Amino acid sequence: MKILDGKKISNDIKEEIAVEVAQMKERGEKVPHLAAVLVGNDGASLTYVGSKVRSCEKIGFESTLIHLPEETTEEELLKKVEELNANPDIDGYIVQLPLPKHINEEKVLMAVDPEKDVDGFHPVNFGKMALDMESFIPATPFGIMELLKRYKVDTEGKNVVVIGRSHIVGRPISILMSQKGEAANSTVTLTHSRTRNIEELTKQADIVVSALGVPKFLKESMIKEGAVIIDVGITRVPDETQKRGYYITGDVDFENVEKKASFITPVPGGVGPMTIAMLLKNTLLARARHNKKA
Amino acid sequence: MKILDGKKISNDIKEEIAVEVAQMKERGEKVPHLAAVLVGNDGASLTYVGSKVRSCEKIGFESTLIHLPEETTEEELLKKVEELNANPDIDGYIVQLPLPKHINEEKVLMAVDPEKDVDGFHPVNFGKMALDMESFIPATPFGIMELLKRYKVDTEGKNVVVIGRSHIVGRPISILMSQKGEAANSTVTLTHSRTRNIEELTKQADIVVSALGVPKFLKESMIKEGAVIIDVGITRVPDETQKRGYYITGDVDFENVEKKASFITPVPGGVGPMTIAMLLKNTLLARARHNKKA
Repeated sequence: MKILDGKKISNDIKEEIAVEVAQMKERGEKVPHLAAVLVGNDGASLTYVGSKVRSCEKIGFESTLIHLPEETTEEELLKKVEELNANPDIDGYIVQLPLPKHINEEKVLMAVDPEKDVDGFHPVNFGKMALDMESFIPATPFGIMELLKRYKVDTEGKNVVVIGRSHIVGRPISILMSQKGEAANSTVTLTHSRTRNIEELTKQADIVVSALGVPKFLKESMIKEGAVIIDVGITRVPDETQKRGYYITGDVDFENVEKKASFITPVPGGVGPMTIAMLLKNTLLARARHNKKA
Repeated sequence: MKILDGKKISNDIKEEIAVEVAQMKERGEKVPHLAAVLVGNDGASLTYVGSKVRSCEKIGFESTLIHLPEETTEEELLKKVEELNANPDIDGYIVQLPLPKHINEEKVLMAVDPEKDVDGFHPVNFGKMALDMESFIPATPFGIMELLKRYKVDTEGKNVVVIGRSHIVGRPISILMSQKGEAANSTVTLTHSRTRNIEELTKQADIVVSALGVPKFLKESMIKEGAVIIDVGITRVPDETQKRGYYITGDVDFENVEKKASFITPVPGGVGPMTIAMLLKNTLLARARHNKKA
């Protein structure tokens, strides 16, 4: 059993990016600039956005946090998005989800300039990804692919079972791993709430990617010997003995599954940190692409 | 065994559309107008485009065939595309593929106004489809979905194996059938050239969608009793005893497979005619959407 150490790999990636940024500075070039828009005061969102901004600072990116009050109207948010689209200093930006209920998320995501859409959530980027064109790949599936690449996990012709058909993880990773290329060329089965025989499927899988959000859903009995296990679940379980009042757990019953798996991602320290690293990578790519056009 | 009669269903759909068009005319409204751009003289392409134009005439659509010589430059074709985008009389249009080798297909498809992209090949339409948003669905997978719906084939929770990962059939049908909704909610496995255990997978499938282009690839021994078989393969096999010098065959060894299947599409007369019907349906949708905006 080998840990797919997302914390280590994400640090490697950040260091690689920091070196590139330092070279940019030496050459007198503009460094990448990431902006994040946060509406309201959701606890998890504050943590995520804060962590993204801090990562930018560490690697030498410029960053801007735009924190808007919960009462912000859709119109005001769309105006802010237009400003970010028009601002040549901003290479990429994210609108942290979820948005307050009175704002139409789809409308906002559609308004983001696809060339600054470093989350890869705009349909044109999603479509380009699915059609094997250059695009921004959503950070979480991009992180999974990178982790598989760096550990040289053999994926070609392997049976992959993806659990969960979300737009930001399950759907895109099912597409990416079944395409041609590195960390791909797999035979992918996408499962979801209507799947009837999930255990039968996971038992036959060489690789399982679980993005369900149900703590300890994937048990040792559900996987085959030597399987590769990617745990994308991040659930906060309330726990008063913890300082912050909760602990983080994944979809996988790690303690037991790790004995049977050949590779496994821990939670925390697996896919989570990779997501931030790949957001930074996308911002670096955005800068390079804008440079090329300028 | 029951034939999924694409010829009959496509005629039903065309009749339904013809009724709508007649009503539009009565109300003094503009009727849908489909244009087709054909570059060069590829035999199959000439047949397909001709058949699309004739279908338009039959149901009361306006149609325009733009036949350009093989030597047309990319620039000239892009100019034609711009004209079609700008022409308010054209509701939707297609650029018949393949294009001559000196023209960059991707560049041309990217230039088509997504709101007139009735083939559903533009990445923004593909992305919207994958993200469960309103879009134009590529005609062939759209036709398969419609066929399944009209015959009330039970797909929910069923295991579907798709053979082939092409951008116009395998990939989109794998996405559509694994989404929520009618003729969907299936557990879909997408297989391709690197898949190692294709027979093992098809044997477990409740529904097989074959879009490979290899005559008689799918044999009786590869499917389970009562499976639903969708044959998207259309191969022209040279045959001098035939008037036109070839015969058309699908991916499925029909004669033997039909004995074991619960539903099966014939070739010809299955998915093929559905493709044209759904192109017309998309053009009708385009007209309605433009009307709403006007």
